[in-house]
Amino acid sequence: MRTALCPGSFDPPTNGHLDIFETAARLFDHLVVAPIRNPGKGTPLFSIDERVEMLCDTLCHLDNVKVVAMAKLTVDVARDVGADVIVKGLRVASDFEYELQQAQMNKAISGIETVFLPSTSQSSFIASSLIRQIAQFGGAARVHSMVPDVVARRLLEKFPA
Amino acid sequence: MRTALCPGSFDPPTNGHLDIFETAARLFDHLVVAPIRNPGKGTPLFSIDERVEMLCDTLCHLDNVKVVAMAKLTVDVARDVGADVIVKGLRVASDFEYELQQAQMNKAISGIETVFLPSTSQSSFIASSLIRQIAQFGGAARVHSMVPDVVARRLLEKFPA
Amino acid sequence: MRTALCPGSFDPPTNGHLDIFETAARLFDHLVVAPIRNPGKGTPLFSIDERVEMLCDTLCHLDNVKVVAMAKLTVDVARDVGADVIVKGLRVASDFEYELQQAQMNKAISGIETVFLPSTSQSSFIASSLIRQIAQFGGAARVHSMVPDVVARRLLEKFPA
Amino acid sequence: MRTALCPGSFDPPTNGHLDIFETAARLFDHLVVAPIRNPGKGTPLFSIDERVEMLCDTLCHLDNVKVVAMAKLTVDVARDVGADVIVKGLRVASDFEYELQQAQMNKAISGIETVFLPSTSQSSFIASSLIRQIAQFGGAARVHSMVPDVVARRLLEKFPA
Amino acid sequence: MRTALCPGSFDPPTNGHLDIFETAARLFDHLVVAPIRNPGKGTPLFSIDERVEMLCDTLCHLDNVKVVAMAKLTVDVARDVGADVIVKGLRVASDFEYELQQAQMNKAISGIETVFLPSTSQSSFIASSLIRQIAQFGGAARVHSMVPDVVARRLLEKFPA
Amino acid sequence: MRTALCPGSFDPPTNGHLDIFETAARLFDHLVVAPIRNPGKGTPLFSIDERVEMLCDTLCHLDNVKVVAMAKLTVDVARDVGADVIVKGLRVASDFEYELQQAQMNKAISGIETVFLPSTSQSSFIASSLIRQIAQFGGAARVHSMVPDVVARRLLEKFPA
Repeated sequence: MRTALCPGSFDPPTNGHLDIFETAARLFDHLVVAPIRNPGKGTPLFSIDERVEMLCDTLCHLDNVKVVAMAKLTVDVARDVGADVIVKGLRVASDFEYELQQAQMNKAISGIETVFLPSTSQSSFIASSLIRQIAQFGGAARVHSMVPDVVARRLLEKFPA
Repeated sequence: MRTALCPGSFDPPTNGHLDIFETAARLFDHLVVAPIRNPGKGTPLFSIDERVEMLCDTLCHLDNVKVVAMAKLTVDVARDVGADVIVKGLRVASDFEYELQQAQMNKAISGIETVFLPSTSQSSFIASSLIRQIAQFGGAARVHSMVPDVVARRLLEKFPA
Repeated sequence: MRTALCPGSFDPPTNGHLDIFETAARLFDHLVVAPIRNPGKGTPLFSIDERVEMLCDTLCHLDNVKVVAMAKLTVDVARDVGADVIVKGLRVASDFEYELQQAQMNKAISGIETVFLPSTSQSSFIASSLIRQIAQFGGAARVHSMVPDVVARRLLEKFPA
Repeated sequence: MRTALCPGSFDPPTNGHLDIFETAARLFDHLVVAPIRNPGKGTPLFSIDERVEMLCDTLCHLDNVKVVAMAKLTVDVARDVGADVIVKGLRVASDFEYELQQAQMNKAISGIETVFLPSTSQSSFIASSLIRQIAQFGGAARVHSMVPDVVARRLLEKFPA
Repeated sequence: MRTALCPGSFDPPTNGHLDIFETAARLFDHLVVAPIRNPGKGTPLFSIDERVEMLCDTLCHLDNVKVVAMAKLTVDVARDVGADVIVKGLRVASDFEYELQQAQMNKAISGIETVFLPSTSQSSFIASSLIRQIAQFGGAARVHSMVPDVVARRLLEKFPA
Repeated sequence: MRTALCPGSFDPPTNGHLDIFETAARLFDHLVVAPIRNPGKGTPLFSIDERVEMLCDTLCHLDNVKVVAMAKLTVDVARDVGADVIVKGLRVASDFEYELQQAQMNKAISGIETVFLPSTSQSSFIASSLIRQIAQFGGAARVHSMVPDVVARRLLEKFPA
């Protein structure tokens, strides 16, 4: 029985994230999805609570997945939920350089391993930062096919066209 | 008759941007240059109005070019000006990764294509962010050969040596 | 009236190349597609003549496109066909680094500009080298949806399952 | 019960590969390591049989690992051994770009997923190609701490100092 | 007699920086280490004065090294201390792209050359930004082996576990 | 007194290489330039002897530079000539990834450090491989401004227009 932890900003979750969660939930026995506040990224669009709600709503069809929010180091979240491995999605090469350093650092301070799941080619451009930018300019309706339904609704509530 | 839209921060415009504008104005029948506020980049050095003035001053010798400022999504600016294509300059590989995602996103939400023009090797290091940084430390006079005259003057007004 | 030259190995042409050709044929008045022998890439799978035939067959529905084969420098082909610009497709960041050097070199030795067209996200992994590798291991039938019909047939003739 | 397939050239296997195998053997129930002939990489230093022998010798302490050699597409090897997932090690960003395309292609032609394991920082420079190059110039004795013992011995046999 | 200037944020200095300083102090006759405030990077964790203190404490065993703080352009610091060359450490490829532009810009505005020293593989993931992030989440004690002793103490003072 | 070793293929030497040699000869007391046969790169265009001749001819104006050819590991050449450091030029980010691994490997097997010198922006596209490719297609006369005179003459002798 192996448990994977999938930490991230998920501000907001996209269909690209959903692909990663579904694959991770097939490859490991249990999956914990954890939206984490990154102090280096400025004010988020959605609060941690909102992100937990959207993720729960999106992932409730997968019975080996749960969502937790913790204001801690990723490696401490991993220990608390009993994770054997951290799972991160990778879209592009510059993601890789950053995530490789993070993975090697996490291993150095706690011993935990990280595995990377590549994005599908169809979702390689669906970055949360682009989704936020489009919604903020009144384009929330245009990205509804790139995010889970609950996210599409919330974006439209925050940024009516 | 084809119209190209060249969106960007242009904070401030550099000689590298000018090369791109001149090439685009040769390759397409009309060129619209559009300084756009990027909310993700923090407070700009020059206001949109200042950037429009500097660009107009710099580009007035090209009779198939006009400058517009719009607080909208790039793809909506493209539709409003009747653009057939978006043109972006590329200096380095990390530009490419970001711009590729943006181009694929813009195509997904509106169908518009993007073409990339490479910077000249001589201007590959002339980033607006470096120009701003040098000017803020009192070095505006040193970058006068890398920016249009009007930009050199404005930088010196903002940051006298 | 502007003419674009799209040079490449096209060994074999893929649906990713076809996307690039179709976009280029919309953005410019005439398009010349030129398979070129790259001495640095070893023995090709298809001869230049075979590639010309496959490209002609694939592109015959576009009336402003023609296919030429020339054993010359790209910039000399460009001059001979009266091209105003070279068009290259880009799939990934490492393509960009190589193509940027080539573009700057071509400008330095002849003055011609290069524009880059990004691949669609769906075709970003469809590299001719991967197609060849799969076909050589007996998998030609599996890539039929990634290449034009004529290419799929030729691959199966060369490498029956 | 999940089975992972770890394909690669392994010409020769290094301690970096060994790290990847050991991690994969912890994360999944069974691991199949498969040296595969890459026709695009020229004449290998070690034959497939030699590589199988070195890998068996190196991995015999892990009882959920086996080594197979197959002259087939990776996705067909995966199907034959009942693999649920392909595992690849990643050392640097340029590895990532290539492996991402391969992973997306393998998913497109067979549905199988790929996960990436990052190299440790200590082994990030231990490329088989550098090991071969050093051995060919008479430096086999210098890389003995970077490869399994059996590989160190075979390198010295092939290239006595 | 040649003097090298090693500018950087050093917020805080890490063992990776220390490796670079020690190598630079062997390759050149004099080394000046200069923490510089980068206005583009937001509020630093440690003030310039704190960084100077930590660097002095860390480097006092090297008798050809001194530490200076100057609120100026790097090229003006270089001129003021009589530096013949700027030295920068490089950890990953994305560092390189940024530092190459900076180096070419510095040469363009003052004529000074830059040399790059690669990080050791063991310290390639030890980024100051990751150290700050871990400390801010209460993990200062975990990174004590990655930073000089004085830095470890200061991190614990700022962020008691 | 410090000696630097600058190894490379130099097939042929370019003005970009010459910039690197001249900078290295200012930064260090002695410079040894060493063309080295890279077995992984196929048949060279110029023999080692021809490359030594062209380099000697090009560098004879620098009295602290000598040229040696040795069929050995770079680290052994470094030891034989008493080099304190290896110097490599870097043009683009993909160069960096390869050279970083080589530098870390050379340090691991011999303790020697490597420093990188960035190319000038003007010469960033002047790759020996592009020069060879252009000359082989009859364009030797077009690259005469990118290579030393002796190289331009030799290219024309080998590949008359």
